[in-house]
Amino acid sequence: MTDATLHPDRLFPPDPGMRAIARALYESVADLPIVSPHGHTDPAWWGTDAPFANAAELFVTPDHYVTRMLVSQGVPFEAISAGTDPRAVWSTFAAHYHLFAATPSRLWIDHAFQHVFGLTDRLGPDTADRFYDAITEALATDAFRPRALYERFGIAAIATTDSPLSDLTHHARAAEDWPAGRVLPTYRPDDCVDPEHPGFRRNVETLGALTGCDTTRWQGYLEAHRKRRAYFAAHGATATDHGHPTAQTRNLPEGQASAVFQRVLRGHAVPGDAETFRAQMLTEMARMSVEDGLVMQLHAGSSRNHSDLVFRRHGRDRGFDIPARTDYVAGLRPLLNAVGMDPRLTLILFTLDESTYARELAPLAGAYPSLLLGPPWWFHDSPEGMRRYRERVTETAGFHNTAGFNDDTRALCSIPARHDMARRADCAFLATLVADHRLSEAEAHALAPALATGLARKAYKL
Amino acid sequence: MTDATLHPDRLFPPDPGMRAIARALYESVADLPIVSPHGHTDPAWWGTDAPFANAAELFVTPDHYVTRMLVSQGVPFEAISAGTDPRAVWSTFAAHYHLFAATPSRLWIDHAFQHVFGLTDRLGPDTADRFYDAITEALATDAFRPRALYERFGIAAIATTDSPLSDLTHHARAAEDWPAGRVLPTYRPDDCVDPEHPGFRRNVETLGALTGCDTTRWQGYLEAHRKRRAYFAAHGATATDHGHPTAQTRNLPEGQASAVFQRVLRGHAVPGDAETFRAQMLTEMARMSVEDGLVMQLHAGSSRNHSDLVFRRHGRDRGFDIPARTDYVAGLRPLLNAVGMDPRLTLILFTLDESTYARELAPLAGAYPSLLLGPPWWFHDSPEGMRRYRERVTETAGFHNTAGFNDDTRALCSIPARHDMARRADCAFLATLVADHRLSEAEAHALAPALATGLARKAYKL
Amino acid sequence: MTDATLHPDRLFPPDPGMRAIARALYESVADLPIVSPHGHTDPAWWGTDAPFANAAELFVTPDHYVTRMLVSQGVPFEAISAGTDPRAVWSTFAAHYHLFAATPSRLWIDHAFQHVFGLTDRLGPDTADRFYDAITEALATDAFRPRALYERFGIAAIATTDSPLSDLTHHARAAEDWPAGRVLPTYRPDDCVDPEHPGFRRNVETLGALTGCDTTRWQGYLEAHRKRRAYFAAHGATATDHGHPTAQTRNLPEGQASAVFQRVLRGHAVPGDAETFRAQMLTEMARMSVEDGLVMQLHAGSSRNHSDLVFRRHGRDRGFDIPARTDYVAGLRPLLNAVGMDPRLTLILFTLDESTYARELAPLAGAYPSLLLGPPWWFHDSPEGMRRYRERVTETAGFHNTAGFNDDTRALCSIPARHDMARRADCAFLATLVADHRLSEAEAHALAPALATGLARKAYKL
Repeated sequence: MTDATLHPDRLFPPDPGMRAIARALYESVADLPIVSPHGHTDPAWWGTDAPFANAAELFVTPDHYVTRMLVSQGVPFEAISAGTDPRAVWSTFAAHYHLFAATPSRLWIDHAFQHVFGLTDRLGPDTADRFYDAITEALATDAFRPRALYERFGIAAIATTDSPLSDLTHHARAAEDWPAGRVLPTYRPDDCVDPEHPGFRRNVETLGALTGCDTTRWQGYLEAHRKRRAYFAAHGATATDHGHPTAQTRNLPEGQASAVFQRVLRGHAVPGDAETFRAQMLTEMARMSVEDGLVMQLHAGSSRNHSDLVFRRHGRDRGFDIPARTDYVAGLRPLLNAVGMDPRLTLILFTLDESTYARELAPLAGAYPSLLLGPPWWFHDSPEGMRRYRERVTETAGFHNTAGFNDDTRALCSIPARHDMARRADCAFLATLVADHRLSEAEAHALAPALATGLARKAYKL
Repeated sequence: MTDATLHPDRLFPPDPGMRAIARALYESVADLPIVSPHGHTDPAWWGTDAPFANAAELFVTPDHYVTRMLVSQGVPFEAISAGTDPRAVWSTFAAHYHLFAATPSRLWIDHAFQHVFGLTDRLGPDTADRFYDAITEALATDAFRPRALYERFGIAAIATTDSPLSDLTHHARAAEDWPAGRVLPTYRPDDCVDPEHPGFRRNVETLGALTGCDTTRWQGYLEAHRKRRAYFAAHGATATDHGHPTAQTRNLPEGQASAVFQRVLRGHAVPGDAETFRAQMLTEMARMSVEDGLVMQLHAGSSRNHSDLVFRRHGRDRGFDIPARTDYVAGLRPLLNAVGMDPRLTLILFTLDESTYARELAPLAGAYPSLLLGPPWWFHDSPEGMRRYRERVTETAGFHNTAGFNDDTRALCSIPARHDMARRADCAFLATLVADHRLSEAEAHALAPALATGLARKAYKL
Repeated sequence: MTDATLHPDRLFPPDPGMRAIARALYESVADLPIVSPHGHTDPAWWGTDAPFANAAELFVTPDHYVTRMLVSQGVPFEAISAGTDPRAVWSTFAAHYHLFAATPSRLWIDHAFQHVFGLTDRLGPDTADRFYDAITEALATDAFRPRALYERFGIAAIATTDSPLSDLTHHARAAEDWPAGRVLPTYRPDDCVDPEHPGFRRNVETLGALTGCDTTRWQGYLEAHRKRRAYFAAHGATATDHGHPTAQTRNLPEGQASAVFQRVLRGHAVPGDAETFRAQMLTEMARMSVEDGLVMQLHAGSSRNHSDLVFRRHGRDRGFDIPARTDYVAGLRPLLNAVGMDPRLTLILFTLDESTYARELAPLAGAYPSLLLGPPWWFHDSPEGMRRYRERVTETAGFHNTAGFNDDTRALCSIPARHDMARRADCAFLATLVADHRLSEAEAHALAPALATGLARKAYKL
């Protein structure tokens, strides 16, 4: 029997022959554990295991995929923000749920409704209250606390994303009193590396205080990063992450790098200094990765807070970050000339500019031993996005220069749904290759678990 | 029985299961009226209802899709231009008709041959004369005059594209003596807004004369636009249209805007002034749309008249306008920061740069309440173009942030063919979503008429 | 019976109906001769007919598709370079052959193993020695010398790529003592045209010595090119080829062109001169093509030798040439304004930037009579690459503005495999058009041989 919202063959090719191949591949990986090496879950969930409050705060107010779609069709931010009565928020969401037809958000949310809460109907005005009550009541029970969900979801390891200034206290606590969990921090130094971050100078000062390094000097500043990276590694981190507006890197002589650092730190920056400093720091971080073995991730090309009004009134991460064209070929060259051929470096690249898959990223990852491609990111973490990724990347870079899947999410209940979608999409892609005889069925069966978990474990050293 | 050129299942997925879904969806929308909110038919057709002259003047000489293809394969412009014996033009066209295999032009023209003129063979050297005679004879009869064709085609409303200087006399006459017709003007101010248009200064002067505004001053110039927009609205217009080489917008302080206006008007422009002025005028027009409710359309990114020789000898709109890369993310930001969150604004975006669908346009339209995406434009108004559009746009922006179909044509007999192609392509796309269970069949049946006419009516307030 | 690695239906659509159409189309072209108008086989092979040494030197060390993939996964260049024991190179290759799953390289290599050497298993660690011995032993026999392979492969004509300074001695010798062969040189003047080529000044001097022209003067330099082009034409050349970092062209007044020439020749170049000179030379070469009828090819957009380290240690053509974004619309305009409407010019365009197919190249080739599009190039010479090419190009440019297939390879045994892949991919594409009724089966049968050989013969005047 097939329920209303989730068909067991969803996302498989409709052709009966290909569907059978895809199904068999999927069955072999559907129940593998979830390896989640990059994401944005709140470390406090794992440290304190406090329950979630209600359906609206779990599914609507913090999810920028959801809020932006509602806003795009005329719903005021105020109606769907924290502070508004959660049942009213939920009711607005339910009344507009048809907007999400054919979007990945709906596939994720329907999956969570059914697999996490046992709700198999479609959300809509008529089911809104029933869904709200069922979810909110469940959340009050122990079985729906974060750690219980982690275990129920079959998560083998999950990485969070953390400021260098974080004391990682939640990670420490989880490690101490929750043996079934594996929560890894990730070193994300943007707020200490980007001179245009409003807290940059204060953060660099704090970085000095935390490490005992003189972060008013270039070498001391770098040494402070080294110490914090070691602190993260001691708490289980295997990776760093870098969110930059462009993929520009630089490899300046020490004197010049130091001079730029002094200017940006003292507020004497000249035009271009902020970009130059960020670019230089990518190369510095790559050099540190060569030394300490932390895997480096670069997420480039998001034009953040496109609407001044939305940013001013409603803050960051509200769905108004828009992708921009990104140049990896010229941008990464200084870094790659410095350390790109070093077998000790792993640098995983992410893009929001799909035109770079076949033109830039697959050729780069198919040549440099240090480079891997991360999975389709953000707007492209979707069935069509995954198909385009594999179709454009595989012929030049193969499968082994890709880093497996990661969910990249702060929406806890979407994690199984996202991994399931990726496994289905990858099995569908493998099935097309088998069906037109580019791959044997045995090869596809060897690749399916690699795409589901193996490549992620290898890339992230998990 | 299936005729030679048009199969009833054309453009549907070949897989039998998917084809059945697509067929059922298509049958539910095939006979809906045609809503044509953006196009380039000649208002004089509707005002005077004069007959067309012959087959060549209907199908060949004015159709830049056709002439450029012939020229690209060595046919001299002279052989297919107005002024040449129309039967000879037709004969050249027929002799080269094989060049159009697998192009949308052929699908449109074959559709018109069959559905408008009852000609079901393939055009070629052997059928050329018979086709020419049949079409030319038909055109001399009342049943093939413009208004009769409008009614036969089931058009519910059609918009033309008009200069602010037009007196809209043909629209007025049609409104007066043709109750079955609905012909709307569209305010297209390029010739009064683009300082690089050869008639710019003269047109601004005329604009002043028509409105009684002092168009030698910035505020008077803006006021003149407001008055003409009101005149257009009084003649039924619901929209404006803006054809710009880029998507650049600006939002200058009034003093600066006024100074640029004075420089471009008096011939003292400095480099960049023309682009700045056009960019500023997009924001001004958006502000006027907030006030008067006219829907704004932006067609950006055509590099007009690429060949100097063709332009000099044969004029505009001869198939030598070539798309250029377009940046919407940075370009639109000033306008969107000014009025993009205002619920009274509707701005419909068109592109010739498909790389912007998933990277820029869907994220923008999936966030800003003012933005909608227009259908695939010009070179992309084709089966593959429509598929790429839906595949790249839907997952981020959904269906409801798109503006339905419009035919954008000056080729009257292609209008039913173009809407039919769009309905088939959209039903084929919906069928793929149903077939792999991303959408239920009921949802697809609710969406099909929205894509065929509903979204266009809503977007254009028709 | 189906062997392990090559299925007779490979690359055809899996849907049974479409597959049957594709199969029938393919059968009609599978055995047509191979026309190879652009490639990089070594003229010495054809002139001397010397045997190949061993499996590693045939399949691994010179193939940058192969070496870059191995290097990208951590194999040191030293392990797979000429100079290393060839059996050890082969063993490394075999141990990593799984990396090539779903890449075109594997389809080509498996095809060569089976069709050239009768080896129908999959290469791997367990079959490595057997493959090495079988191939190496075969290569020592007369049946596997270059000329015998040419005849066995059914090649009708093959073009090499040659410096203007080449004496074409191997072409002359082949013409003299090998009546069954047709080996054409191609005039590739990059090393005499690119001021950034390390040998530029010396080469221009040699060009003068060879031709008796005063190549220290602009007109003498151009005249020298004319003479060498005539020399190439006398040796059978029908085409020139130009590998440029961008598609920029210029059409300077003679005085300015001459001044730039003097600066780059005397080492007084100012920034931009090298690019300006290359751009000017494209237009000069186009003008010469108008005069002498040689077909012009432009391969633009490869960012050569991306890794300084790899270039320094291991040289050119090692897989570290990475595509870059390319602008054809603005770039080609000066050349096209000079000679683009001249019916005597044929200019075939190649790109590594697929985003230009639908946006720039198809509109340009679908308008200018001089322009044709070359087949998908390099990273895009693959099943997915070919599909994207046809899907993006055909609706605007049709089939007749494309130049047929060419293999562009230095890997002799891959030539039949590459043409076979292209024929399969094109027949698969035609089958999709037939299956959804955009094309009749008769039309597809007329087009299939045109795509396989006819268009290439016509475009290259073969």
